[in-house]
Amino acid sequence: MEDIGSDETLAALERLLGVTFQDRSILQRAVTHHSCCSETAVRDSYDTLEFLGDAIIGAHVVEYIFRAYPDASEGQMTALKSEVVSRRVFARIGQQLGLFSFIRVDIANLRTFNERSRDSLCADVLEAIVGAIHIDQGPDVARDFVARTIFPVIEQVNQQTLDNNPKGRLQKIILQRSGTLPRYRVLEQSGRNNDRVFLVGVFEQDYLLGTGKASSIKEAGRLAAREALEQLRNKHVL
Amino acid sequence: MEDIGSDETLAALERLLGVTFQDRSILQRAVTHHSCCSETAVRDSYDTLEFLGDAIIGAHVVEYIFRAYPDASEGQMTALKSEVVSRRVFARIGQQLGLFSFIRVDIANLRTFNERSRDSLCADVLEAIVGAIHIDQGPDVARDFVARTIFPVIEQVNQQTLDNNPKGRLQKIILQRSGTLPRYRVLEQSGRNNDRVFLVGVFEQDYLLGTGKASSIKEAGRLAAREALEQLRNKHVL
Repeated sequence: MEDIGSDETLAALERLLGVTFQDRSILQRAVTHHSCCSETAVRDSYDTLEFLGDAIIGAHVVEYIFRAYPDASEGQMTALKSEVVSRRVFARIGQQLGLFSFIRVDIANLRTFNERSRDSLCADVLEAIVGAIHIDQGPDVARDFVARTIFPVIEQVNQQTLDNNPKGRLQKIILQRSGTLPRYRVLEQSGRNNDRVFLVGVFEQDYLLGTGKASSIKEAGRLAAREALEQLRNKHVL
Repeated sequence: MEDIGSDETLAALERLLGVTFQDRSILQRAVTHHSCCSETAVRDSYDTLEFLGDAIIGAHVVEYIFRAYPDASEGQMTALKSEVVSRRVFARIGQQLGLFSFIRVDIANLRTFNERSRDSLCADVLEAIVGAIHIDQGPDVARDFVARTIFPVIEQVNQQTLDNNPKGRLQKIILQRSGTLPRYRVLEQSGRNNDRVFLVGVFEQDYLLGTGKASSIKEAGRLAAREALEQLRNKHVL
């Protein structure tokens, strides 16, 4: 503990982050858990920096998503954002960065301490560091840091969770497993003129994989493909 | 409807906002409800700009709170933020700005339309406009707009909801109504050394107004004053 918080340690952390602080005391605060300073936690612990960093990361991630996926709906953007801006993802990034060894925490004063506590501390401190960079170095440097550490995850998460092209994905899967192409059929059509609703089903040979309902055949087909992918996922076929 | 979205209307909106856009089409999008363009809503309606603006406003408001109230706890900051960044507050700001007359919405296509829908549209469009300014004019101009339109509300809300100085407020109130000063007494003391807990009560003459428990007498007194203020508020004395 003596060593942590020393100038050499903070300098090593600066090298790790790729950021040199004007005022290192804010960096020190960003890695200080309130267990180390219960009486002066508001000023000396990372709690409020974490709160700040969380909001700043949120804005940068949303802006990235907005620019990178102009054809995503608000619902898709929200889903992607909440996958990225999560404790789990921040913990992984913080651990991979190697933040844990820099965190000042009085473990003896914690109720429990286990792998999850490590994760949680790393997630907190990642956010707090973004807050500290933003305050000490300004918004551009903070944005660059977020771009380096967090933006790469957006692409990864997007590939895992969002299906921007469900019809394409479904086609690949069906072709692979049965050598046929999925077929789309309009099952139902209701409403008139500007108020039309199409129910589209997607089939593997004669087996109905999923359905979708929308005001255009194209969108209903997309939704049907997405439902089919979900069904396959639930059956652990994917 | 014909007139809305015309160049003159957008120019009038720019004057109202104090922002001149490079690309007015993004401003037009910021005031366009998806009822006007259901087929192309992702690209032409304000939905995703609103999502972006919400995150940007959140970050600016949190940064303001962080800088303006350095002695607030993370819990106090969170409470203040969620009071400010609310549909209710955004609706009021949007209505006061006079945004409603600029909003392009196909009212006939909405299920219901009433005063609450107006509020809701104004809140949406305020957020979307911030998103549009951020994209078209960059972060500094967006921040200035948020500073002009939303920061003043933070102070108002703070006065109404947060008691950064509960002892001072309580003293004023008690002095006013009974001509006496509130008195603080340690009612209980437990634990040892670094683990001490104090229970402090605050009294108006002999009447116990509230209690607080903390690891320092000072903080316990603050909490007692806060509880007293809450009690008085509940009894509609305040």
